Amino acid sequence: MADGRNRRRANTRQRLYESAVELIAEQGFTATTVDDIAERAGVAKGTVYYNFPSKTALFEELLRHGVGLLTADFRAAVAGRAPREAVAALVRAQLEYIQRYRSFAQLLLSEMWRTNREWQQTLRLLRAEAIDVIAAALQAGVDSGDFAADLDVRLAASALFGVGLVVALDWLMFQPDRDIDDVERALLTIVRARVAID
Amino acid sequence: MADGRNRRRANTRQRLYESAVELIAEQGFTATTVDDIAERAGVAKGTVYYNFPSKTALFEELLRHGVGLLTADFRAAVAGRAPREAVAALVRAQLEYIQRYRSFAQLLLSEMWRTNREWQQTLRLLRAEAIDVIAAALQAGVDSGDFAADLDVRLAASALFGVGLVVALDWLMFQPDRDIDDVERALLTIVRARVAID
Repeated sequence: MADGRNRRRANTRQRLYESAVELIAEQGFTATTVDDIAERAGVAKGTVYYNFPSKTALFEELLRHGVGLLTADFRAAVAGRAPREAVAALVRAQLEYIQRYRSFAQLLLSEMWRTNREWQQTLRLLRAEAIDVIAAALQAGVDSGDFAADLDVRLAASALFGVGLVVALDWLMFQPDRDIDDVERALLTIVRARVAID
Repeated sequence: MADGRNRRRANTRQRLYESAVELIAEQGFTATTVDDIAERAGVAKGTVYYNFPSKTALFEELLRHGVGLLTADFRAAVAGRAPREAVAALVRAQLEYIQRYRSFAQLLLSEMWRTNREWQQTLRLLRAEAIDVIAAALQAGVDSGDFAADLDVRLAASALFGVGLVVALDWLMFQPDRDIDDVERALLTIVRARVAID
């Protein structure tokens, strides 16, 4: 009984996340009301407040949930891989993630550099966790001699994260019929040259 | 007399652009009211409506104005330069632009992939004009043999544009004391390797 209730509750939260992320990506945080979120999720407004104390709390949980999934994908991608393969796997993981959670990726780019949001500190910490996985893979490559010794690892990790987001969103918006393998190949040509020793 | 009036009008519009871009970058389009814009610009609300029929019209003009300045900077950067120098000059121009118009750059990233804004079509066209300058410089490098023949010029141009935006915003937010020359050098190390033949 308790298990069924927990499962139902997790399902409801998942639906609320999905509705909120779509609406906020479409029209922004302020324009999105709790009524909109409830309506799109097909639940009563009271159900939203039963699960989250406020729209801001829902959004903050949603950031945790979404960036947490990305960081987990990044960690799975690099696990047990040598530096060059790890970077290729990170690029693939990011493309797959954005293909699956496009609205969330868009929302992430919108919120990343805002200066007066309540969740700004949370987002910075979450983002740092994801970028740390990339930075660790790059640092391992510098240490092993695979990547240039003077690579600015921090800047390169943020560049890699940024380029993946931008290229993937462009792909999905402007060339949606293009195959993910083809985008990955084109992006890897650029990324490989970028971190490798000439 | 007419000249003075035109100059005053241009000054007022400039102040309204600056106020609007700051406010929208801080809190989003929907949360920003015409009252807020008038207050920050230090003009009466009527002055806003005297210059622009609506908040949306003001925002669309602001996009035209801001992306127009960037495209002009890009064109000036590549003029008369060989492909490799042109790419370096584009990177520098983009960093300088974002340092100067940081809020606008942030706003551009927020709006770039939204799907249901009235100004979406305008923004796509404007963005294409800026990216075309980058693509032309890359294509010239492919034609001259400076860059790899199999470079996906379109994807690389959008990647270059995206990486410049992301790295510059990260720099200004997380390492604001870092010198622009130093950021340029680190970014160029990455960008050079990226487009060059290994």
